[in-house]
Amino acid sequence: MLAAVPDARHFTEELNLLKDRLIHMGGLAQARVADGLNALVDADKHKVQKLINGDDVLNKLQLEIDDRCFKLLALNQPVATDLRLIVSAIKISADLERVGDLAVNIAEATVPYLGYQPVKALIDLPRMGEIAQQMLASALTAFLTNNAEAAKSVLAADDRLDALKDQVFRELLTYMLGNAETIAPAVELILISRHLERIGDHATNIAEDVIFITEARDVRHSRRK
Amino acid sequence: MLAAVPDARHFTEELNLLKDRLIHMGGLAQARVADGLNALVDADKHKVQKLINGDDVLNKLQLEIDDRCFKLLALNQPVATDLRLIVSAIKISADLERVGDLAVNIAEATVPYLGYQPVKALIDLPRMGEIAQQMLASALTAFLTNNAEAAKSVLAADDRLDALKDQVFRELLTYMLGNAETIAPAVELILISRHLERIGDHATNIAEDVIFITEARDVRHSRRK
Repeated sequence: MLAAVPDARHFTEELNLLKDRLIHMGGLAQARVADGLNALVDADKHKVQKLINGDDVLNKLQLEIDDRCFKLLALNQPVATDLRLIVSAIKISADLERVGDLAVNIAEATVPYLGYQPVKALIDLPRMGEIAQQMLASALTAFLTNNAEAAKSVLAADDRLDALKDQVFRELLTYMLGNAETIAPAVELILISRHLERIGDHATNIAEDVIFITEARDVRHSRRK
Repeated sequence: MLAAVPDARHFTEELNLLKDRLIHMGGLAQARVADGLNALVDADKHKVQKLINGDDVLNKLQLEIDDRCFKLLALNQPVATDLRLIVSAIKISADLERVGDLAVNIAEATVPYLGYQPVKALIDLPRMGEIAQQMLASALTAFLTNNAEAAKSVLAADDRLDALKDQVFRELLTYMLGNAETIAPAVELILISRHLERIGDHATNIAEDVIFITEARDVRHSRRK
């Protein structure tokens, strides 16, 4: 029955491996957001199609990470920080998988967009994309380094991203009202701005999980309206 | 040390209580979606404002349910179905909380919408709302009764909701191109249709969790592209 006894060293190794896999998944999710933005900015139809077809890797990673978490929960009796880390890992893998879906959503809105006359320099969408990517990178670094302070900076960036989304919306609506030819492409850009906003929301979820793991404090809903 | 020994009867009671609280939360989330739709259809500004201000109950329920789950995981050593139920409960409470947020998002888009001339009979938005609510109700019933077959019907409804969303989009775009006065209100309706689509996505997540709990089979990504 030795095999059934939890081995502390093995458990720590498994936890580290879990974190590695999440960081790996996070890097891939981030790369897909960058690809989505670049495909839009460069009007690169080939890149758009590649993005739409390539969501499998993240989906498989989510299943693998969740499976690891369930085994860790079932075979060990984690408490305190370890328990919070493992349960949060399941939530973070779901957030990263959704980020991958949103990159696909951006690509799917880019397909019709590229069929129209482009809207003036994409206004602030690239800036929104930069903030969303930066939020994701900071949230993952905070997770890897157990840094609650870094996680809090993500929450502040989310407010900037939301403000930018409202500004982008007003600007695009003005174009649409002024020139009917911009209606169809501008609607796609509005949808893309919402996808970017949601990527920021997922980065915020991850940051809140990091604060929960490190400080045992649930900060969700304490700052959001 | 008697207090630290897990008591099987107490554990079962706690699991049942957890399910009760989730079903309670689900009912409230569903009611908020219904309120959002009714406020839009009835052009009821008072109801809209009430919805925007009333998200606290769901937020608190999410924190309460997650806290219950963490205690159940830490104090007992759940395996198999019980472990899957408890971890799924954390995910389901997150889905229901997001449904509540989306009801607020619907209300927030209804505020500017009501300031414009209404778009012809809201096209198929009320139908989308009905499907989303029905999906949510079916997913919760499937959860309460451990009914994987009922959960599968939710997945089929999600495809109908997506098709309807595309149809609504095309129809609204046609209005916008034909009459500039419909641009601003139609954009709000497009956003509302996306919120309804996402409510369907959360109901789908819950249905997938029910299949996972009852059949120990992870069906995520097996049907979605």
